[in-house]
Amino acid sequence: MSLTRRVFLERLGAIGGFSAAYLGMEALGLLNVPPASAEPFELPRGTGRGRKVIVLGAGIAGLVAAYELGRAGWDVTVLEARDRIGGRVWTVRGGDRVVQTGRPDQLCRFSDGLYLNAGPARIPHHHHVILGYAKRFGVAMEVMVNSNRAARSEFGGRIYSNRQLTYDTRGRFSELLAKAIDGGALDGELRGGEKEAMRQFLAFYGSLGNGGTYVPDGRSGFDPLPGGYRETGRPVARALTAADLMRIGPTAGFPIVFEDIFDMQAPMFQPVGGMDRIAHALYEQVRSRVRLSSPITAIRRRGDGVRIHHGPGDRALDADFCICTLPLNLLGRLQTDFSPAKQAAIRENSNYLASTKVGFESPRFWEEEGIFGGLAWTERPNENIFYPSDGWLSDKGVLVTAYASGWTGQNHPAEFMAMSHEERFRVCRESVEALHPGKARLLGRPVTVSWPLTPWSEGVGPVGPAFGGGPQGGTRTAAYEELLRPEGPILFAGEHLSYVPFWQEGAALSAHAALRVLAEQAAARRAA
Amino acid sequence: MSLTRRVFLERLGAIGGFSAAYLGMEALGLLNVPPASAEPFELPRGTGRGRKVIVLGAGIAGLVAAYELGRAGWDVTVLEARDRIGGRVWTVRGGDRVVQTGRPDQLCRFSDGLYLNAGPARIPHHHHVILGYAKRFGVAMEVMVNSNRAARSEFGGRIYSNRQLTYDTRGRFSELLAKAIDGGALDGELRGGEKEAMRQFLAFYGSLGNGGTYVPDGRSGFDPLPGGYRETGRPVARALTAADLMRIGPTAGFPIVFEDIFDMQAPMFQPVGGMDRIAHALYEQVRSRVRLSSPITAIRRRGDGVRIHHGPGDRALDADFCICTLPLNLLGRLQTDFSPAKQAAIRENSNYLASTKVGFESPRFWEEEGIFGGLAWTERPNENIFYPSDGWLSDKGVLVTAYASGWTGQNHPAEFMAMSHEERFRVCRESVEALHPGKARLLGRPVTVSWPLTPWSEGVGPVGPAFGGGPQGGTRTAAYEELLRPEGPILFAGEHLSYVPFWQEGAALSAHAALRVLAEQAAARRAA
Repeated sequence: MSLTRRVFLERLGAIGGFSAAYLGMEALGLLNVPPASAEPFELPRGTGRGRKVIVLGAGIAGLVAAYELGRAGWDVTVLEARDRIGGRVWTVRGGDRVVQTGRPDQLCRFSDGLYLNAGPARIPHHHHVILGYAKRFGVAMEVMVNSNRAARSEFGGRIYSNRQLTYDTRGRFSELLAKAIDGGALDGELRGGEKEAMRQFLAFYGSLGNGGTYVPDGRSGFDPLPGGYRETGRPVARALTAADLMRIGPTAGFPIVFEDIFDMQAPMFQPVGGMDRIAHALYEQVRSRVRLSSPITAIRRRGDGVRIHHGPGDRALDADFCICTLPLNLLGRLQTDFSPAKQAAIRENSNYLASTKVGFESPRFWEEEGIFGGLAWTERPNENIFYPSDGWLSDKGVLVTAYASGWTGQNHPAEFMAMSHEERFRVCRESVEALHPGKARLLGRPVTVSWPLTPWSEGVGPVGPAFGGGPQGGTRTAAYEELLRPEGPILFAGEHLSYVPFWQEGAALSAHAALRVLAEQAAARRAA
Repeated sequence: MSLTRRVFLERLGAIGGFSAAYLGMEALGLLNVPPASAEPFELPRGTGRGRKVIVLGAGIAGLVAAYELGRAGWDVTVLEARDRIGGRVWTVRGGDRVVQTGRPDQLCRFSDGLYLNAGPARIPHHHHVILGYAKRFGVAMEVMVNSNRAARSEFGGRIYSNRQLTYDTRGRFSELLAKAIDGGALDGELRGGEKEAMRQFLAFYGSLGNGGTYVPDGRSGFDPLPGGYRETGRPVARALTAADLMRIGPTAGFPIVFEDIFDMQAPMFQPVGGMDRIAHALYEQVRSRVRLSSPITAIRRRGDGVRIHHGPGDRALDADFCICTLPLNLLGRLQTDFSPAKQAAIRENSNYLASTKVGFESPRFWEEEGIFGGLAWTERPNENIFYPSDGWLSDKGVLVTAYASGWTGQNHPAEFMAMSHEERFRVCRESVEALHPGKARLLGRPVTVSWPLTPWSEGVGPVGPAFGGGPQGGTRTAAYEELLRPEGPILFAGEHLSYVPFWQEGAALSAHAALRVLAEQAAARRAA
């Protein structure tokens, strides 16, 4: 394969100039080419010709659908159960009321300008559709620091810095590989010159000293830091051994590779002022078409069209088409005349991931310790801590002290969800205290959002069998195909109907896909 | 050592609570503790008692010295040769004139809000002194994206993405290590359970499939990207082989580990609006004490004090003390009555690194290709490209198309410096065209700054023998000690007199170190 690749590139170089090289880059995946159909998305103008379409749900999928339908001349109405738009894109600010099923309401008391992104908090740099809308509507963006070598994690009751885990792991593996090469174990794999080249490469890649032993060179930290005049600084010399790494591997392994997941790679972004800025920018485009506080009660077909029953007061609204963006767990409860196969697929895939966050307002003590953004991991039930990536060097920030989703497999996310709010806060304070001794007392004004307890969501994304068992999970089954299938004039969208599930990007892409089908249906009807 | 470390932590856990654990973190280097003396820096109030001190140079070292001296009651005068402050911290904006020795002047024509950081362009998160001043003076900061998995580099005439280099390297090394383990080559190193644990760890660390072969899982890219409905996306399957990696290793090796250097690790920062914002914030504190356009001609001792001769018009200024922050290459040319040993040390260490940058104003075509900030590397003479980390998703930006410093050892930085401005621009356009076919035509309004040709700098930092041969180089010699030694009431500062050379942090730390010596001298004189 490698030879083929090389020959391929050489051939390209021979037959063409830069444009051939560009095609070569594309063929080799260097450009992360979007699906051919995805960008730039625009329904043909006049597709709608004033025909009516009802969009169910004013989350990202619904707002994108409404915006694009409006541009194409459709008469759109969006029905949204909540008194706000955004769906799971929920930014909680001071003055906001947080309602959780079976729990006391919380009134968020954050200071002005502070917020908790209770839902999505990151945008990968390759989510070109969402970033495209941000650009089109002038939503200011800033970097979300997802990788931070200074951040510390707690495994097995011990504290490890990210740089220590990152570079000690690499150093120890390089050391072992160098030993294997020196011992002749890979003579069958490596030719003479390659062997020597690889030993030299490993020396700087893994920071190997003479003799092939890992000698930390400062990449895993300094203690103390270098200073002025005669303050030489000293690279941390106490490296983790391979045995140490294997001992913490079962839980530290996932955090170590987390930033390597395609969706988590640097750089990542967030809208300045809160994740809901993009949803609100879309909303501004379609505001007059959106009816808030209008929960759906039934989805019916009526002739060639649809009749949607909704609150308040069991109203009925008729249209030619419907785009349904409701999550499967809610959709399964509505009265519909969907086919038995569709109803079964919905019912069997209504299991949604539990996920719970906690945010505290606090003086930015972590920045005094040199931690600017990034993540801490722990085996405690709070699982994951986000240091804020906004307001650098200012006085206060919101520390997300829990993002419990079952990340490392050490905790079941339902465990943290089941705790009382006060219990969650206690777990978070203890976790912060372990990572930042003496600082938990600075945490104030807590707010917690658990998605299974959040009305009109009840979870963050599908983990049912149709999706191979979870986010980025295995192979999708025939049930996924069934979920995609239109029910006559009723089309479906939402992050779950994409291969970018759990992300705003997937919601937008699914809306585009649904609208393409809608345009075909509308054209077919015109032709009929 | 590892056992000692473990025993140490366990012992700490046994004898104390969190504060003992905190001390443990400190002892293990997890906190990147600054040198004990470095923070918070403050000269005792009243140290000065109105005594006079002259600071030579209004770069970071001089401005920090002047600010801290003023706070402690000294009567400070700063003499600066240029008509601006900041020294090598030079942000070039539209309307600025760029003067280069032996070259035609350039008038920068960038649009409003755009700039080229001709000198430093990054602040590491552990540069607590510079970040501390930024915080104190309310200088707004933003993330400088130094690591970008989407960025592409050119080696051997071929284009590689950062994620491909990063993860294919790791995957291939993991694959080889797994083979060595499976073959029993490391049975002497790893005990039974460790062997199996390491094989499991390598599987996700290096993305190994069944059989231990590297199977790219999407971390090195997707082609096409996943989309909505049935657009599954496809991980790039054509991985570089170990032999490929070794072939490009001699030049790609440094770029691959660049982000791992302690000073280059994520996250990095930049002031919003240009690097000179911090220097200007310091300047605002001491503005009335700074005389611009006042080049030094002689540094003399006079009784217990100093007499500084300076332009314009060969004036003389007397003071009790002097803090000299001039770089060695300029200092060696002045008339002084320094000791022969000092004069020799200065003369023998006047070799300063050549470094040249080029910036173009351009529509942000790289963002349309999914590249937001970060670096591209090339073996061409322009060496290194910076994508801008400000103004995300806006229309235009400044693309730094050359940062030639001899980074990879393939080019001598003097080669690029020696080119005419137009030749440099041509090299840059060709390099950009190779990385972004069809886009070089969008580059406009170029500006280039070569530090050896920049009056009052003539280089970016010392690479003479006293410094072990370069930035972060080898062991400092006795000449370094000689350079630190006060000449009576004349004390020395500047990035070169620190173990953080070439950085603003080193300049500030050296100023602090010099002021500590000054305070001792002043106290001794009072006592005498």
